[in-house]
Amino acid sequence: MKSAKNYIEENKERFLNELIDLLKIPSISADSAYKKDVIATAEAVKTSLEKAGCDVVEICETPGYPIVYGEKIIDKNLPTVLVYGHYDVQPPDPLDLWESPPFEPVIKKTDTHPEGAIYARGSCDDKGQMYMHVKAMEYMTQTNQLPCNVKFMIEGEEEVGSVSLGWFLERNREKLSNDVILISDTGMIAKDVPSITTGLRGLSYVEVEVTGPNRDLHSGLYGGAVANPINVLAKMIASLHDENNHITIPGFYDKVEELTTKEREKMAEAPFSLDAYKKALDINDVYGEKGYTTNERNSIRPTLDVNGIWGGYTGEGAKTVIASKAYAKISMRLVPDQDWKEITDLFKNHFESIAPKAVKVKVTPHHGGTAYVTPIDSLEYRAAEKAYEATFGKTPIPQRSGGSIPIVALFEKELKSKTILMGFGLDSDAIHSPNEHFGIWNYLKGIETIPQFFHYFTEMKK
Amino acid sequence: MKSAKNYIEENKERFLNELIDLLKIPSISADSAYKKDVIATAEAVKTSLEKAGCDVVEICETPGYPIVYGEKIIDKNLPTVLVYGHYDVQPPDPLDLWESPPFEPVIKKTDTHPEGAIYARGSCDDKGQMYMHVKAMEYMTQTNQLPCNVKFMIEGEEEVGSVSLGWFLERNREKLSNDVILISDTGMIAKDVPSITTGLRGLSYVEVEVTGPNRDLHSGLYGGAVANPINVLAKMIASLHDENNHITIPGFYDKVEELTTKEREKMAEAPFSLDAYKKALDINDVYGEKGYTTNERNSIRPTLDVNGIWGGYTGEGAKTVIASKAYAKISMRLVPDQDWKEITDLFKNHFESIAPKAVKVKVTPHHGGTAYVTPIDSLEYRAAEKAYEATFGKTPIPQRSGGSIPIVALFEKELKSKTILMGFGLDSDAIHSPNEHFGIWNYLKGIETIPQFFHYFTEMKK
Repeated sequence: MKSAKNYIEENKERFLNELIDLLKIPSISADSAYKKDVIATAEAVKTSLEKAGCDVVEICETPGYPIVYGEKIIDKNLPTVLVYGHYDVQPPDPLDLWESPPFEPVIKKTDTHPEGAIYARGSCDDKGQMYMHVKAMEYMTQTNQLPCNVKFMIEGEEEVGSVSLGWFLERNREKLSNDVILISDTGMIAKDVPSITTGLRGLSYVEVEVTGPNRDLHSGLYGGAVANPINVLAKMIASLHDENNHITIPGFYDKVEELTTKEREKMAEAPFSLDAYKKALDINDVYGEKGYTTNERNSIRPTLDVNGIWGGYTGEGAKTVIASKAYAKISMRLVPDQDWKEITDLFKNHFESIAPKAVKVKVTPHHGGTAYVTPIDSLEYRAAEKAYEATFGKTPIPQRSGGSIPIVALFEKELKSKTILMGFGLDSDAIHSPNEHFGIWNYLKGIETIPQFFHYFTEMKK
Repeated sequence: MKSAKNYIEENKERFLNELIDLLKIPSISADSAYKKDVIATAEAVKTSLEKAGCDVVEICETPGYPIVYGEKIIDKNLPTVLVYGHYDVQPPDPLDLWESPPFEPVIKKTDTHPEGAIYARGSCDDKGQMYMHVKAMEYMTQTNQLPCNVKFMIEGEEEVGSVSLGWFLERNREKLSNDVILISDTGMIAKDVPSITTGLRGLSYVEVEVTGPNRDLHSGLYGGAVANPINVLAKMIASLHDENNHITIPGFYDKVEELTTKEREKMAEAPFSLDAYKKALDINDVYGEKGYTTNERNSIRPTLDVNGIWGGYTGEGAKTVIASKAYAKISMRLVPDQDWKEITDLFKNHFESIAPKAVKVKVTPHHGGTAYVTPIDSLEYRAAEKAYEATFGKTPIPQRSGGSIPIVALFEKELKSKTILMGFGLDSDAIHSPNEHFGIWNYLKGIETIPQFFHYFTEMKK
């Protein structure tokens, strides 16, 4: 029987070209101007699943963007793996920082990726990692090595909070029934340090608007006498952290899970170089909550970041104006056991309460999700461990990621099944940033490792 | 001899249409995209001065936009009035808040302006007020009532800090020699409360840039572990005011002129309704430096306002990103005897000193100017007083404006002459804001009052 290694070697070029074609479609779910492209991407995913050997493939309509569903049921008595991924991507801006256009994929060699990496928005997050599963499926069906049933659920709203997914899950519990959910939408510590993500942060994303005077004013005639909404917004944002960079929203930390010293020690074993980290980002120092390491700050601790701010005159030159309005987009990363809806309310109430009487404040929640932590002694986790051992020759390190896949908690609630996060991206892949890329080595290694999970998971389930 | 009143009545329509034509040219000096229009406006001003009766009119090149010079010398032994104005305008944005396009003037009646007001960018600041002098000149020459020599100096860079004016003054001291400088680029308290501006605030305008990581980052993977330049910028801006809204920059107040109780009492006599003020701006409360009234805050006290701020994702929807850079435009209004260059340095040093090690900060000075206060017992002031008495039947109230015309101090230094600020605009004219307008009544009243100043000033000089 043909090994995955050989099959991949023979089809490498095609695997790359198929992904590149998918990356050319700008499926930006956050911007309604790209609606056509988002839907075209769903169609492309449907076709790819049919070619990969699914017996049934459907484009399922939702109140938002459609979900592509595919399945191959070989034996009702065998376990079922549900693969989740998303075909939408983040907005590419700032465009001027891209070395090549975000939707014209190019392959470039780098120190980290001597075999070359595909540069394009979505190459890693998540088109590339999602497509590894499509190609792994192709390998298993083409070589008659699919050991169990498989279902695919590929959505188009992950980057805007999976707004329609809950709606879809509620209505398709039976159809989506499975024994484990497999997702590749996270990263690994390094190419030679395989890791499995065992924790994800939750998210609460809000937009705030501060209104001062009912019109823009001359800063000479009114300066100093009326509240300047930009100055006020800056003051309000600044007050959300204290001098130790703790978040000051009352009740914010009440439900935060505190790790034991032992757990923190285990975390600290993961290879990490602060100097390399600072060098890679060209910063003189890191910055964060007092009493926690960099790896703790971006994984086991909640955060509050302004993702965007705007107001007043931002054009060329000078304009002496006091703006009528100032805006900010603010997101909070949450950890177990914070409830994102509760945190969103706490933020809203606090932010409105600290506004001076001289301004009006509006807080609009965008979306959110709950944090998730998975045990490392489960059958699913051990099957994944064996898969990595088979292809990397190393036991993967369990790691908690700072990112959020809100739907993982949703899956557990709606589908009652565990999720395994087998990520093959690297932190240096610049997801959500200009020049996002995905190593060809990582892409192919993923295609090679996924069938191993199917194999061991089915074995251990028997 | 024909009175100004009659002459204006007969030519009213033409006076309006000529101004409207001038307002149609978008002479935005802050935006290089409008360079052609700025220069076209200079040409139009030149033509209008020729028609108004100047014997010599020139477009004088400078390192920046040209200065239009015109003169009519009737007798070397008579005094000379130098009229200053500017033909450039503020950028019109935010465009969506304009009820009619900023460069398509329309006349609308309002409660304040039952005779109608011209809505257009520059209608009041300063094309409209500058053009009053051109038409007053026409009246005096057409009716042989020009009592003295007159010179015009109309520049095109006032809204960007009059960068080339100093250069021009140094090189043309002889040509510009005069006995008094007359400017209409300020306001009056109300249509029935004529006032003469006796004080102007200085200005220091800077742009700041805060750089965190060398690229935009995923706020999940990096959030909480690296300095977010927007959060840091907000903290730095917030720290520039203390809980009493005093500015915290060390040395900022060292040279601030403190008014006597008597002076402040006299100021307080000017008619002012805080309720009407709040109602007009639709604010629940005013906001400013503790221990000072609204009228003091915007005239005799220095201020610090953010005029614009931007960074990160500002588009539709949500993007979970930590921006690499955040920016702000910040201006400080200054009072006697603050030196704007010194204040700019104090700001720069302070702002750089408060930046955390985790970010890089760049402060770029835009432009500035020194505050100015004029005595109310001078011959020039008394001549202006009489002019208002003649046309309003009331003695004008001396008032200190919060605005800045940096060049007034420059004139005193370079040309050794006093400036009289006869403003006919109203605070409600929305200069620098959307829907800027200028009352037709104010426009014509200015044309009527200016010749009276020429008359009394010449009389009193004899």
